[in-house]
Amino acid sequence: MDIAYDGTGFSGWARQPGLRTVQGVLEEALATLLRAPVTLVVAGRTDAGVHATRQVAHVDVPDPASDVEQLGHRLARLLAPDVRVTSMRPAPPGFDARFSALCRHYRYRVCDDRRGADPLRRHDTLAWHRGLDRTAMNAASATLLGEHDFAAFCRRREGATTVRALQRFEWARPEPHLLVAHVAADAFCHSMVRSLVGALLAVGDRRRPVAWPVSLLAGTERSSEVQVAPAHGLTLVGVTYPPDAELAVRAETTRAVRSHVPPV
Amino acid sequence: MDIAYDGTGFSGWARQPGLRTVQGVLEEALATLLRAPVTLVVAGRTDAGVHATRQVAHVDVPDPASDVEQLGHRLARLLAPDVRVTSMRPAPPGFDARFSALCRHYRYRVCDDRRGADPLRRHDTLAWHRGLDRTAMNAASATLLGEHDFAAFCRRREGATTVRALQRFEWARPEPHLLVAHVAADAFCHSMVRSLVGALLAVGDRRRPVAWPVSLLAGTERSSEVQVAPAHGLTLVGVTYPPDAELAVRAETTRAVRSHVPPV
Repeated sequence: MDIAYDGTGFSGWARQPGLRTVQGVLEEALATLLRAPVTLVVAGRTDAGVHATRQVAHVDVPDPASDVEQLGHRLARLLAPDVRVTSMRPAPPGFDARFSALCRHYRYRVCDDRRGADPLRRHDTLAWHRGLDRTAMNAASATLLGEHDFAAFCRRREGATTVRALQRFEWARPEPHLLVAHVAADAFCHSMVRSLVGALLAVGDRRRPVAWPVSLLAGTERSSEVQVAPAHGLTLVGVTYPPDAELAVRAETTRAVRSHVPPV
Repeated sequence: MDIAYDGTGFSGWARQPGLRTVQGVLEEALATLLRAPVTLVVAGRTDAGVHATRQVAHVDVPDPASDVEQLGHRLARLLAPDVRVTSMRPAPPGFDARFSALCRHYRYRVCDDRRGADPLRRHDTLAWHRGLDRTAMNAASATLLGEHDFAAFCRRREGATTVRALQRFEWARPEPHLLVAHVAADAFCHSMVRSLVGALLAVGDRRRPVAWPVSLLAGTERSSEVQVAPAHGLTLVGVTYPPDAELAVRAETTRAVRSHVPPV
């Protein structure tokens, strides 16, 4: 299933007792419709306040022959307007929303108008009150591409690797005062996208030189100098999977690599 | 001044005792900065719940020599994030935000996905649970262009004319499930845009034939058959003015025509 949500009213993706989370709300609605408890497996576990336009999750259903299209429409009526299941279909054999994924795609929106962000987009746009130098930011972002140990940009988890392959990190300016970061990697550590963005904002408003972010890659610990950018500017916009024939193999490979790593 | 606001938290534009309105909030902030009461004159008085990306207003200030740029930045710090003054500059001679305007431009966003609207845009997008036929809607919209008595689409006010020149009314589909109406006229009567949209939605989901909206123009009273579309899908996106040299003449002409007409 493809899922879109406004993260404002959620304590993140992952189910937590007593808190409204995207996983909790969806599992509850699906359990009502399917008359059986279900567990969602998700591509990108988002933090509190982070949005999604195209999150991907899968669920094992008791009766695979049930009408999935119809289930999607009934689900839409049960859900609040801040979370939508935009597409629902039978998964191809071997598909695993988390382990089959090749790449997660995020965007981060920043308005650098001193007068503040567009009121209609303030829920998914960070207001930054200094002008940002997009050229410097793109130069610095490019130095981070490729496979590195991103420990300086991650909240460490015991026994988890922080080596990741950053496939895309670039800044567009589609409107005069709007900067949008496009960030993609095979997977992200916890708070990694927001730490990358936070470091680049320091370059953008000239508090740090262009060479500073890449210098942090030498660290093996989370850097206290990197400010984590606020959650509400961040949106998961897509997940890439391999062709159907390769789904199972990809899932096996990823599962093996991350077998002792908590899901992110 | 150019103004953007999310209408969700406002009881419309016009100042009303005890209610939070855009005019009220702006006049209060300006009065604080200028240390004198001020009255804003606006191009398009929007109803409760209607948004703006580029509303235009003018204000007479006690000291025209004051630094307008600086005033704009101080104003930004006083205002809540749901209303922004995006631009502020000295008005050319003869400028009147209301009477000099040639044309008001609105958009109306409708999502016709049965599964509901994008959660991040639900504040300015109507969710419509039936598919809409854009071709039929554009055919019907085109029949309404030009100068007509739009009485059937207006909440009547005593002594006010309901003759208006509809300059643009067309529907785009920038995304598979998103319809956006672009509507422009010299001026609009009260609730006119939302009535036009409401009538067209009935054409779009085949409850009414293409010829129905234009047949309503024969009426001299508001039609009870026209449903007024909800406020939150509507946004004022711009106001057109003539070249500076013609501002004063345009204001005089409009003022004469509408001298006995309450502002809209």
